[in-house]
Amino acid sequence: MGVKLGILGLGTVGTGTVQLLQDKSFRHPLLQEVEIYRVGVRSLDKPRAVTLPDSVLTTDLEAIVSDPAVDIVVEVMGGLEKARSLILKAIQNGKHVVTANKAVISRFGDEIFTAANQAGVYVMLEAAVGGGIPVIQPLKQSLSVNRIHTVTGIINGTTNYILTRMQTEGGNFSDVLADAQRLGYAEADPTADVDGLDAADKIAILASLAFGGRIKLKDVYSEGIRQVSKTDIAYAEKLGFVIKLLAIAQSAAPLAAIANRTTPSSPSSPSSPLISVRVHPTLVPKAHPLASINGVNNAILIEGEPIGQVMFFGPGAGAGATASAVSSDILNLVAALKKSKTALNPLLACAHQDYCQIVPMAELVTRFYARFLTKDQPGVIGKLGTCFGNHGVSLESIVQTGFQGELAEIVVVTHDVQEGDFRQALTEIQTLTAVDSIPSLLRVV
Amino acid sequence: MGVKLGILGLGTVGTGTVQLLQDKSFRHPLLQEVEIYRVGVRSLDKPRAVTLPDSVLTTDLEAIVSDPAVDIVVEVMGGLEKARSLILKAIQNGKHVVTANKAVISRFGDEIFTAANQAGVYVMLEAAVGGGIPVIQPLKQSLSVNRIHTVTGIINGTTNYILTRMQTEGGNFSDVLADAQRLGYAEADPTADVDGLDAADKIAILASLAFGGRIKLKDVYSEGIRQVSKTDIAYAEKLGFVIKLLAIAQSAAPLAAIANRTTPSSPSSPSSPLISVRVHPTLVPKAHPLASINGVNNAILIEGEPIGQVMFFGPGAGAGATASAVSSDILNLVAALKKSKTALNPLLACAHQDYCQIVPMAELVTRFYARFLTKDQPGVIGKLGTCFGNHGVSLESIVQTGFQGELAEIVVVTHDVQEGDFRQALTEIQTLTAVDSIPSLLRVV
Repeated sequence: MGVKLGILGLGTVGTGTVQLLQDKSFRHPLLQEVEIYRVGVRSLDKPRAVTLPDSVLTTDLEAIVSDPAVDIVVEVMGGLEKARSLILKAIQNGKHVVTANKAVISRFGDEIFTAANQAGVYVMLEAAVGGGIPVIQPLKQSLSVNRIHTVTGIINGTTNYILTRMQTEGGNFSDVLADAQRLGYAEADPTADVDGLDAADKIAILASLAFGGRIKLKDVYSEGIRQVSKTDIAYAEKLGFVIKLLAIAQSAAPLAAIANRTTPSSPSSPSSPLISVRVHPTLVPKAHPLASINGVNNAILIEGEPIGQVMFFGPGAGAGATASAVSSDILNLVAALKKSKTALNPLLACAHQDYCQIVPMAELVTRFYARFLTKDQPGVIGKLGTCFGNHGVSLESIVQTGFQGELAEIVVVTHDVQEGDFRQALTEIQTLTAVDSIPSLLRVV
Repeated sequence: MGVKLGILGLGTVGTGTVQLLQDKSFRHPLLQEVEIYRVGVRSLDKPRAVTLPDSVLTTDLEAIVSDPAVDIVVEVMGGLEKARSLILKAIQNGKHVVTANKAVISRFGDEIFTAANQAGVYVMLEAAVGGGIPVIQPLKQSLSVNRIHTVTGIINGTTNYILTRMQTEGGNFSDVLADAQRLGYAEADPTADVDGLDAADKIAILASLAFGGRIKLKDVYSEGIRQVSKTDIAYAEKLGFVIKLLAIAQSAAPLAAIANRTTPSSPSSPSSPLISVRVHPTLVPKAHPLASINGVNNAILIEGEPIGQVMFFGPGAGAGATASAVSSDILNLVAALKKSKTALNPLLACAHQDYCQIVPMAELVTRFYARFLTKDQPGVIGKLGTCFGNHGVSLESIVQTGFQGELAEIVVVTHDVQEGDFRQALTEIQTLTAVDSIPSLLRVV
């Protein structure tokens, strides 16, 4: 085995990550080189959803970050002070770090990245923002050739869930919050979410990457959704808007305000980017790409020159999604650690040589939409249904929709069928004297 | 200067790329190391939108790919056979390649990547699919820890533009196509777009990356949109669907069909992934994430385990967007070429040390929504308008929306204002005897 992980924490995200790494088939082959070497937990007695050898589990987290055998420390324990000190100690001991901890990075990123640069190690944080959505890596590696104008995110699933339900049900904030807590979509203490603090942590991280400068968390303006009323949601609706908790980082270059502005509150050089960073409930025009992001989903819209607008959408939380992000950071580190002078980075090179096996279309399983023109006589729908039944084609709906001249028009939508079976049914249908033609045949996703 | 580019072609994409690389301020600092060393064109006499020294422009493309000084060949000339042979020659001469050429990669990727692996060079192709949208790199580097189930894309802007207009205007395919050609959204010969061939090239590339096996283009089923009628769009609408040209690559593992399937048509090992790959017009439920992707935009939805669904959205074509993708590939190669054993990959490490300058909220320029409760007396709206005018706040709308008990409710939406000015206007408004309270104040994006 190549690369040894020391994982700190075995809660939701830690368990998801271990499950992914214990089940490597049909994932990237480079994961084969990853070994779960130590997992630090608070108690050895707690029942676990994953099975790990006794030699791997330990309550001594300090020993993990000091163990010379550990290559990468994966911090998925959460919290602030303890996580911070373990990350720093890991860095001092020359270990690369993967963390999902937005609170630690947004508060102590300065200290952590300074230490990491001095030690020559990486600190990776894809899971800190947007759950499983790849957004940190695209910002660093793909979009940074652009001049970024604006990063606008729906990056807190709890508040988006609450606002979506207030919008669709017309409920009050406090009632919907109580129900969200009951259903597990909001924490017993909802402060970090509903007051915008979690989103503030995340936009501070995104802003730092998008604009290439550090951010003091206290400079991020943050306003939550407690004061959003159903009255305003209704008026906003009439005016053509929905209300979303947006986190926004924006270059101030186009603002008229910059000419005579006051002194900044943080140390910065004259060439440092001038930006605004803020979290607040916002009226969003219904045609805006973020207006239709509903429920616990997250989305990050990035605008820059020359790219225009790109948006990343997906699950903003959850064990599986976050484990995907944590594991992708591990994968990138494994690739980066292949330090041979001649070998290509396996993530940038094309590795596979075999061909995929392609399923013939006749074996494809899909739904179909078909439109028939038939003689206007009784029993035609029954005859169509019989033909479909003969070939095992199950129908979702069959409707006579109207007439074209003297011919009746019938529209059919099927359940999932094998395409070959469906086409055999159509062949039989074309032999029916009542059927004139089949002008349309489309698949349904 | 560090890394020397030989650019093949100076059409739309080549020009956009040169413009980006000639204007490096506020882009990633690593671009400073990139030098436009040679640009190969068909004619030296053609007027150009970019200025390049005479020593850089040449009509001898063969000389570029053989020049020992060139580090990276950027193929943005398009076409098939000439592009293929120049790419292969560049690889044989040990040069890394960046290409935007989906047609060459989907047809000759086998030969090209085999040659690249033998020569130990990279072939990068972010611009080949989805224009500026980062999707190749996320698939390779972020999402490959997942077992991918399905990649579903709207990856041809022309057909999506035509279908969107047929949907909104109720037009016929041939009429909308003619208008799209007149407006420059469709080519004089629209075959590659409307018959699904361009989308087939692109889904072959995405499928290969998502499932880790090569794809023969002839195995990709392709059906275009010529036969989509306005009648079917209208019926689909009534049934709750929109019609989109989808490109789909799907793991066949969950299909019932795989047990007794026929022999595959391409060489593949028993462990090769079994997938279906296809392009066809498709009924998409209105609540599906791809249903609301309209006009020339592209979107790629990726579903996998454990991540769930993620979607990438943005401009699928255009000089700027494609130049962003080409340049991001160049940036990644520059980072990968820093082969020092101790230096970190600058794209993965955190490089910036200065703080951003943060604009105080009072200097933020934004739109506002405000709700007022006032006494029900004549002239109140005029008084509000006067107060706003005193502070330079321009209103988009001011409406008396109803009553709360005896108080009139007035909703205001402003144009862009400086937040400090707006708040001063509110302070003045609160002194008006006619104004009871300001229960809501929200920003508008």
